[in-house]
Amino acid sequence: MKIITRIRHYLHENRINIFRQRLKLRRVIFESDTPSGRRFDIILLITILFSVLVVMLDSIPAVKASIGDFLKVIEWVVTGLFTLEYLLRVWTIGRPIKYMTSFYGIIDLVAVLPTYLSLLLAGSEYLIIIRVIRMLRIFRILKLGRFMAASNVLVIAMKESRHKIIVFLEVILTIVVIVGAFMYLIEGPENGFTSIPVSIYWAIVTITTVGYGDISPATPLGQIIASVIMILGYAIIAVPTGIITMEMSKAQQLQKTHNASQIFCWSCGETDHDPGASYCRKCGAKLSKKSVRPRKKK
Amino acid sequence: MKIITRIRHYLHENRINIFRQRLKLRRVIFESDTPSGRRFDIILLITILFSVLVVMLDSIPAVKASIGDFLKVIEWVVTGLFTLEYLLRVWTIGRPIKYMTSFYGIIDLVAVLPTYLSLLLAGSEYLIIIRVIRMLRIFRILKLGRFMAASNVLVIAMKESRHKIIVFLEVILTIVVIVGAFMYLIEGPENGFTSIPVSIYWAIVTITTVGYGDISPATPLGQIIASVIMILGYAIIAVPTGIITMEMSKAQQLQKTHNASQIFCWSCGETDHDPGASYCRKCGAKLSKKSVRPRKKK
Amino acid sequence: MKIITRIRHYLHENRINIFRQRLKLRRVIFESDTPSGRRFDIILLITILFSVLVVMLDSIPAVKASIGDFLKVIEWVVTGLFTLEYLLRVWTIGRPIKYMTSFYGIIDLVAVLPTYLSLLLAGSEYLIIIRVIRMLRIFRILKLGRFMAASNVLVIAMKESRHKIIVFLEVILTIVVIVGAFMYLIEGPENGFTSIPVSIYWAIVTITTVGYGDISPATPLGQIIASVIMILGYAIIAVPTGIITMEMSKAQQLQKTHNASQIFCWSCGETDHDPGASYCRKCGAKLSKKSVRPRKKK
Amino acid sequence: MKIITRIRHYLHENRINIFRQRLKLRRVIFESDTPSGRRFDIILLITILFSVLVVMLDSIPAVKASIGDFLKVIEWVVTGLFTLEYLLRVWTIGRPIKYMTSFYGIIDLVAVLPTYLSLLLAGSEYLIIIRVIRMLRIFRILKLGRFMAASNVLVIAMKESRHKIIVFLEVILTIVVIVGAFMYLIEGPENGFTSIPVSIYWAIVTITTVGYGDISPATPLGQIIASVIMILGYAIIAVPTGIITMEMSKAQQLQKTHNASQIFCWSCGETDHDPGASYCRKCGAKLSKKSVRPRKKK
Repeated sequence: MKIITRIRHYLHENRINIFRQRLKLRRVIFESDTPSGRRFDIILLITILFSVLVVMLDSIPAVKASIGDFLKVIEWVVTGLFTLEYLLRVWTIGRPIKYMTSFYGIIDLVAVLPTYLSLLLAGSEYLIIIRVIRMLRIFRILKLGRFMAASNVLVIAMKESRHKIIVFLEVILTIVVIVGAFMYLIEGPENGFTSIPVSIYWAIVTITTVGYGDISPATPLGQIIASVIMILGYAIIAVPTGIITMEMSKAQQLQKTHNASQIFCWSCGETDHDPGASYCRKCGAKLSKKSVRPRKKK
Repeated sequence: MKIITRIRHYLHENRINIFRQRLKLRRVIFESDTPSGRRFDIILLITILFSVLVVMLDSIPAVKASIGDFLKVIEWVVTGLFTLEYLLRVWTIGRPIKYMTSFYGIIDLVAVLPTYLSLLLAGSEYLIIIRVIRMLRIFRILKLGRFMAASNVLVIAMKESRHKIIVFLEVILTIVVIVGAFMYLIEGPENGFTSIPVSIYWAIVTITTVGYGDISPATPLGQIIASVIMILGYAIIAVPTGIITMEMSKAQQLQKTHNASQIFCWSCGETDHDPGASYCRKCGAKLSKKSVRPRKKK
Repeated sequence: MKIITRIRHYLHENRINIFRQRLKLRRVIFESDTPSGRRFDIILLITILFSVLVVMLDSIPAVKASIGDFLKVIEWVVTGLFTLEYLLRVWTIGRPIKYMTSFYGIIDLVAVLPTYLSLLLAGSEYLIIIRVIRMLRIFRILKLGRFMAASNVLVIAMKESRHKIIVFLEVILTIVVIVGAFMYLIEGPENGFTSIPVSIYWAIVTITTVGYGDISPATPLGQIIASVIMILGYAIIAVPTGIITMEMSKAQQLQKTHNASQIFCWSCGETDHDPGASYCRKCGAKLSKKSVRPRKKK
Repeated sequence: MKIITRIRHYLHENRINIFRQRLKLRRVIFESDTPSGRRFDIILLITILFSVLVVMLDSIPAVKASIGDFLKVIEWVVTGLFTLEYLLRVWTIGRPIKYMTSFYGIIDLVAVLPTYLSLLLAGSEYLIIIRVIRMLRIFRILKLGRFMAASNVLVIAMKESRHKIIVFLEVILTIVVIVGAFMYLIEGPENGFTSIPVSIYWAIVTITTVGYGDISPATPLGQIIASVIMILGYAIIAVPTGIITMEMSKAQQLQKTHNASQIFCWSCGETDHDPGASYCRKCGAKLSKKSVRPRKKK
């Protein structure tokens, strides 16, 4: 009877131990505010960068010929480590399904698959490069707040301007398709405009001011049309710029007013004090902590 | 006698029926706020996209060789459908002339003509691609309001900045013509600058930062002048951007203040007061809180 | 005796006539607010455009071969007309020296000289293209005010931002010279970087995102450096854009406050009324014409 | 005894003389507000420009062949002068270590070294071009204040926007690496995408809209992906532009309010009140008109 109690006790203790271990691991793997968590993230980033470099090197014929086998070994080792890391992540987190279906969860999985896939499908090992997306975790290690604020402003500006950007892109695409078709008729296959899709490709190359020069108009009329859409492309780049600038300035302002809770003077009602003020700038009454009235959101 | 009455009655009923049918059809074809109208628009857009794709495929030699006849048949079927649609539009709408001379009316007609024209003039079937303009109807199906507001801001900003943009384009064109002539004298036909128009084309390619490289300066002096106009082109792209950004922010503000609550004077009806006003700027009557008449949102 | 008086009288009358003629001519030639002045300007512009087109056509070998002589005749006729016009301008204007040394005076002269010069120096007839600058007179015919205001804003913005633009250009030029020298060492003559000046030319082509492709890096290190300055060039185009946008918005504001004389309420001192107001928005007092107090400049 | 006193006296005088000389030299070399200091700076700049031109000319094969030896002599003379100047700078300044480790101190040394280095390492003489950085001293000669203010605004705007710019560059680099790897798989070595690094180089050339055309996609799928990242690159150039414009306008405003009259509280010394304040925001004392202490302009 005593043995059973002891085993039970042992198992119980063990379970607690494992639970504690899991909690500790979770903090190390998922957070970066502890020294060990930080160390883990840095090692992870270096490994990612390293494995991306290995893939790049492996794609260079001369390098592959000389140390290709060695790179292959490294690739498998790193993939093994990442697989282990992925399993640990799934095991330690409270809600594995939520993690596995999250953006980073999918990326973590996708970063591991290509190596295994390469056994079945030659060439797919180069997809490992998707691991580079994992590098975005870098913002977690750097002073988080500032970068989060910065990328928040960018994301808000993008979101707010999406309707205008869509209208803009629709117009661009319409122009590009029509110009492409006309150029196909004008220049024809003998000048490199072998089909309408190729002509549209040329129109995109031109209107975005990329200008490879692999295809370029040779007839006077084609050159005139090309000139027109070049100037068009050159001038209308102003449109997305204007949109984003405007939205970004609005997003910035929103964030600022959001960060600065408004200080309200109970004596005269003045609200336009700046954050550090102790006395009302209108009536000179002392501003109490109570005066701070959080502003209603939009 | 009874028969005549019955016939009359029948015809009358029929006419009402046709009238009702027309009304119903009109709602389906022209509006997109009913389920069937929405369905009609979606089918229309898919058909347009499909027919544009067919034209594109038809222009690829390899595709044309293998399934060219099949594509031709599709083209005729789609054109037939669009012709029917056009006739229905003309028939169902109240004022056919107004529709036929409107922007969309002309586009709807032009989108149909090239196929018929191709019987007379080879190659003109590629003009069918103009159908892509009809795709702009897509904004009708998507949540209309937001996109209308977005494109309104864009259009207003464009309109307001047209004087500045024209001055800007005049200056660019003048620079481009003069630089073109000089480059023709400096580089000459042996370096690809075969005539002044070609040199002007090169100058446009350069100042807009497209840079095909089909023509590029080979003499030192030519390269110096090219460098100057490249830097010029690189720097003055800031000008249209600045113009559009400014006008867009003004247009946005205009729209916002327009949407915002208008202060309405109950005494004279003036609505154009600014938010802080206490007296009507037209008649001097006191503006009460009640005067504020919130504008219906969108 | 009577004859002398008559001659004197005749001469006097004649002089008056000539004087009147001169005045009338001056109005026609220099102003564009009379119908005949307007007509003169339009004919002038068409002639300029025509002569520029003639020069362009003359530079195309095929055209020159077939109708070169005919174009030469036209060129001489137009130059004759422009010479006559220039002389008339000098004669009719009050202060000929001031006109002759003004921007437009010099352009008018320079637009005439190349044809005469071509008798001495072959090829110089193409400089006639400078005539295109005279096209800038077009803003005189179009609704003047708006375009003047528009170009004023542009010019003020340019002037105000010149210090920042110069600093910016200095930095760009320094980068371009250093990168050019390094690329010459790295890539060397065998990859097209034949000398430091050529390398600098390449660096300018790259940093301004023109990218002809006549010279392009072939070594890995060269491609890395090229990538860095491409991204740099791509990102720092934001700098002149930011500068111009800011200055343009300031210039616009300045012009607006300048155009809108401030309305001052003599009863309460409020100055912040908008142009159309008849009553003070603060105290409701009637605003008299007298209330308008022109604002001091800056 | 007298002789010793005299010698002492002489040495003392001499030391004073040398000290004076040093002081005078320091003013000439380091400042540009005296006529001789200004003259020194101008001569220095011309010499720098001259030596940079010599290096450039020396790199052109044709020039080197004809006057290479002469240029070599000039190079050594100029380097000698710059070495002397560097030693004088070190000698005359109060804290030589601080100068030697400052930005300009290092540049001054680095501008001299390549010539000496060229004795050991062929080709390194072209690094003399680094001297061009010394040209940045030019702002000292031009009206200093305005340019300092201008470059301050630029530098502040850059600093403030660095977090957003880093996030932006991270995203760009991630896109470029992934697109590069995919294009390597799609296009392959036969179309010029010989390895992943080269494909990434191509992606940078494309997304920055440079577009050399030395490598360009040839397969339909490759052209579609290229089109997408071209449009992406074309549209997202708006992002850094928006960031810089916003930050620049903030930096400008900051500088203006800083230059503007500061309101000074005579009771507690607080200066950071905004223009409309009537009471000190720190101690609540009434702010009199007298409190306004206009700041010295520049």
